[in-house]
Amino acid sequence: MDKDIGNILHSWIEDLFPICRSITGPGVRETLLYFKEILPNLKIHSVPTGTKVFDWTVPKEWIIKDAYIEDEYGKKVVDFKNNNLHVVGYSEPVDRWLDLDSLDKYLHSLEDQPNAIPYITSYYKKNWGFCLTHKQRELLKNGLYHVVIDSELKQGVLNYGELIIKGESDEEVFLSTYICHPSMANNELSGPVVTAGIAQWLNTLTKRKYTYRIIFIPETIGSIVYLSRHIDYLKTHTVAGFVVNCIGDERAYSFMPSRSGDSLSDRAALYALNNYIESFDVYSFLDRGSDERQYCSPGVDLPVCSVMRSKYGTYPEYHTSLDNLEFVTPDGLKGGFFILKEIIKILEINDTYQTTCLCEPQLGRHNLYPAVSTKNSTNEVYNMMNIFAYSDGESDLLELSNTIGVDIITLHKMIIRYEELGLMKKIIKD
Amino acid sequence: MDKDIGNILHSWIEDLFPICRSITGPGVRETLLYFKEILPNLKIHSVPTGTKVFDWTVPKEWIIKDAYIEDEYGKKVVDFKNNNLHVVGYSEPVDRWLDLDSLDKYLHSLEDQPNAIPYITSYYKKNWGFCLTHKQRELLKNGLYHVVIDSELKQGVLNYGELIIKGESDEEVFLSTYICHPSMANNELSGPVVTAGIAQWLNTLTKRKYTYRIIFIPETIGSIVYLSRHIDYLKTHTVAGFVVNCIGDERAYSFMPSRSGDSLSDRAALYALNNYIESFDVYSFLDRGSDERQYCSPGVDLPVCSVMRSKYGTYPEYHTSLDNLEFVTPDGLKGGFFILKEIIKILEINDTYQTTCLCEPQLGRHNLYPAVSTKNSTNEVYNMMNIFAYSDGESDLLELSNTIGVDIITLHKMIIRYEELGLMKKIIKD
Amino acid sequence: MDKDIGNILHSWIEDLFPICRSITGPGVRETLLYFKEILPNLKIHSVPTGTKVFDWTVPKEWIIKDAYIEDEYGKKVVDFKNNNLHVVGYSEPVDRWLDLDSLDKYLHSLEDQPNAIPYITSYYKKNWGFCLTHKQRELLKNGLYHVVIDSELKQGVLNYGELIIKGESDEEVFLSTYICHPSMANNELSGPVVTAGIAQWLNTLTKRKYTYRIIFIPETIGSIVYLSRHIDYLKTHTVAGFVVNCIGDERAYSFMPSRSGDSLSDRAALYALNNYIESFDVYSFLDRGSDERQYCSPGVDLPVCSVMRSKYGTYPEYHTSLDNLEFVTPDGLKGGFFILKEIIKILEINDTYQTTCLCEPQLGRHNLYPAVSTKNSTNEVYNMMNIFAYSDGESDLLELSNTIGVDIITLHKMIIRYEELGLMKKIIKD
Repeated sequence: MDKDIGNILHSWIEDLFPICRSITGPGVRETLLYFKEILPNLKIHSVPTGTKVFDWTVPKEWIIKDAYIEDEYGKKVVDFKNNNLHVVGYSEPVDRWLDLDSLDKYLHSLEDQPNAIPYITSYYKKNWGFCLTHKQRELLKNGLYHVVIDSELKQGVLNYGELIIKGESDEEVFLSTYICHPSMANNELSGPVVTAGIAQWLNTLTKRKYTYRIIFIPETIGSIVYLSRHIDYLKTHTVAGFVVNCIGDERAYSFMPSRSGDSLSDRAALYALNNYIESFDVYSFLDRGSDERQYCSPGVDLPVCSVMRSKYGTYPEYHTSLDNLEFVTPDGLKGGFFILKEIIKILEINDTYQTTCLCEPQLGRHNLYPAVSTKNSTNEVYNMMNIFAYSDGESDLLELSNTIGVDIITLHKMIIRYEELGLMKKIIKD
Repeated sequence: MDKDIGNILHSWIEDLFPICRSITGPGVRETLLYFKEILPNLKIHSVPTGTKVFDWTVPKEWIIKDAYIEDEYGKKVVDFKNNNLHVVGYSEPVDRWLDLDSLDKYLHSLEDQPNAIPYITSYYKKNWGFCLTHKQRELLKNGLYHVVIDSELKQGVLNYGELIIKGESDEEVFLSTYICHPSMANNELSGPVVTAGIAQWLNTLTKRKYTYRIIFIPETIGSIVYLSRHIDYLKTHTVAGFVVNCIGDERAYSFMPSRSGDSLSDRAALYALNNYIESFDVYSFLDRGSDERQYCSPGVDLPVCSVMRSKYGTYPEYHTSLDNLEFVTPDGLKGGFFILKEIIKILEINDTYQTTCLCEPQLGRHNLYPAVSTKNSTNEVYNMMNIFAYSDGESDLLELSNTIGVDIITLHKMIIRYEELGLMKKIIKD
Repeated sequence: MDKDIGNILHSWIEDLFPICRSITGPGVRETLLYFKEILPNLKIHSVPTGTKVFDWTVPKEWIIKDAYIEDEYGKKVVDFKNNNLHVVGYSEPVDRWLDLDSLDKYLHSLEDQPNAIPYITSYYKKNWGFCLTHKQRELLKNGLYHVVIDSELKQGVLNYGELIIKGESDEEVFLSTYICHPSMANNELSGPVVTAGIAQWLNTLTKRKYTYRIIFIPETIGSIVYLSRHIDYLKTHTVAGFVVNCIGDERAYSFMPSRSGDSLSDRAALYALNNYIESFDVYSFLDRGSDERQYCSPGVDLPVCSVMRSKYGTYPEYHTSLDNLEFVTPDGLKGGFFILKEIIKILEINDTYQTTCLCEPQLGRHNLYPAVSTKNSTNEVYNMMNIFAYSDGESDLLELSNTIGVDIITLHKMIIRYEELGLMKKIIKD
């Protein structure tokens, strides 16, 4: 699968790109149904408007059918049908005539990016507005304009998708990605498609140590809803977690730690980035901006970090129409998929072992060692002896690998062999 | 008050400067009575000569009326009436004739500071002597000299002043300053006058979290006496403490930690110095030289550090007649007063808070957040979100401020607002 | 003794050098008997072939009488009688004729050190072979060769020497050195002779705090045998330990920590090296290669580090005939003896003390302090006050010395004086 994974993921983004998503509404459902095609076991949940979730309330469902600005001559100067970023997310319905001065305060554009339509929402305060390129805006002449937003805010539901892939243990790895952004590609369709690709790959594994809990949610309100329903279970079963987003461009790799900064997620992610990626940017939890805000909040305290390509907020195309199908590439997605997969592979093998015999084993007796000792001992014997010397039942393989300088995949293979010979035992820590 | 505080404090020093203080005697009482004028609740205590205090004994009281060296012609070549540093502190009474050679071993001067009279004492070994400038000494010709010290060493008392300013809690902040130095200004009248100014300011506060225990003592024997009477209470009630001395010149700010180095006193002092003072000198507890020697001794272990202007022993005027009313200035005293006041203000607000809701609060609902999310989030919202994210019930405001980069005063104001909204609660730690 | 110690130790090496040692056999016994002359209380133990020791089995005893390669004309081209390194250790008996091509695969030489005979063993796999200089090898012409190894591998014993020097406490310092190397000097006769010298010196002491357990063993199998018999006692009684080897040349001093790296052994060794030796090389436990491999293995976990001159594997003469009586010198041995002795002296005095009185003692009262306080306090008083201020019953003298900058020998003398005055007490920690 991996060979074409970049192209496959990119084709999914192409399919999903035109859909007008928001935190609720038909666009979210359409997106979730698309992923259910890919992942048949994905369960789609509905939470009614008005449901109390911690300090929040599930908002009304937003349905947008059309939106445009017409000039006096009936010419549509801004049209939602051309780009769903043109309407401010969660805009109330409007149908009225305004002169340019009055209209102006409902318009949003970016003077220093004159070809970009900005992405604006107003979820929790009644409002409406249009987003357009600064070039478009400068062409608007004095006169009257007919503004129409054919939207509806009504009692409805908030939807999210949930996929549980069982492993040998009921300890869980948690993946969270969001499906509330309209036509943008890195932030955010890269996260859901990479996550779906990872889920497909996890399904192909014949053996999984951990159970995988994978959710596709609207950002913020979705993670709050999900936590309000599952927090006790998550707090007692989650060993590692990742917010998957901004993972499809080619410009950078990025790491943002959990609040604690030293969780298993952080350690595995840093191991993979340090060992498999030439260079990457390290952010602080102070730079956070997505659902880790909820997952790592005081009292929730889940071990959730983020591994990204170009982090939200750090690239000029961010939250504009320029975050598009060219910015996100098959190679970019493939790189994001690769690093996340490697991190999971590390988590799957990262156990703690202890040498079973006191003193070094007699390697020759176990056919592990050349009996003739020469002036130059081989590197393999050196690594083997280090494994026996440092496997103290306290350090996991990540720590052991960092100490003795043997990559964790090789290290694991070697230890499995010693385990089969009865020279190592796995330690289950509480 | 603050506007003129430098001049007020300097005027107090001017009043107190001529008094001949020592570790006991009339000069100490006169000084304490002066402070009782300023602080009517100051209690003056007396401890009899011979009282055992830990490894020490309260010494005899020393009363000095006159002291001079007369030449053969009746001319006073050294006269205590000109400067009370001329006589070695705790000198025994003397009245005899000596030739210059014999006299010489009772004289103290500083060859490399020929205009300075050194400050010398001999509290715990019977002795007498005169201090003079090196210039004076070089003028002495061969011949006979009549040396007179009209002093008395007798059963009496050791005096100290104690002021308790009650707060809401019986947890205490401890301020200790010493009133045993004769006519010197930075070391030491600056400490007592700045401490008295702080006490006046504390009395003006309508609300104090902590109780303030403020003592005016003779150095070393005074702190030992005080500890011998109050150690159990101090050990169980003191949250922070400061030796206040050398706090009136303009050359430097200085910090010397407690022995442990990481007490609340140390953290608050370093916060204030780092944030409010352009540069300051950091000393080690190995550089200690005043009552922290007792307060931080093994088994006493009080959280006492020192915030100073030019530390004792580091400026050439130290322990000489040149440590005078010009070396200590209104601006120097004002700076010392300011930094000590700011540290106390920090201690008063340095509580520990916890976000009350799980996940972030919905800021809009509490009128904390602009409902329209735009590409650029404001700095205030960023700070607010950090406060909610990092208030975990473990970190106090000092730690929180260092983590999120919001100054502690602003941070406290913001948190109080969130507390009023029910979004924060204060955590009382054991 | 110390004056001539280098020459004495070197003369012992000269005596022992010609003996053909291995991990078992007559050469080991002869060597142990030599040390028993020096240390009459040395007990020589025998462990039968076939004894199970953890993952290992005591091997057969190896007896070598003669070994040579003769050419067709009866000329011995390689002769064990010239240098016992010529025969591969533990070679089986052989007596046969081979042509040069067939012989070649049983020969070992070093192309880049053409004058060195390498040191090769094959303890745990049946084998035989000859070691020779590369120059010798190149002189061999085509033809038939008569190879004779007159050896025997038979049921016998493994021998080791053990010396217990009792101290006041049954807590022990452990010294381990190995006596299995044939004619080489730094690695290894330097270790046994320096250890024997240390043992002689320990016997001269009138008072020892610790009991000293000193063993002379064959490397690896000897330490495993010894641990298998004494592990529980060693784990509960050993406070510090050292593998003594490679301690006789003049090129370097070296330190290799225990696995934990922060044991008392490590701290005392680093203290001595940092304070008494101009410069030294620091290795990682990853660089280990001797019996610390067993002593520090998981579950054994003894506090054993190594203080060496030039570490094994780091000098070109290592494990060749060039590691000889010129490479190891009287001065080199003397330096190694000195540093090990100093470390032991440190261990003997490294107690933990606590100031007995609260607050500083009144120094004058105890005749510890000049009563006249002058502008310049002396360094001795400064050190004394630091001792009283930092002796908190937690820090041992090593830590105290590092904190206050007084060398540990002086520090100990000063503290003993204060203890005699009743101002200090020794703290026994569990």
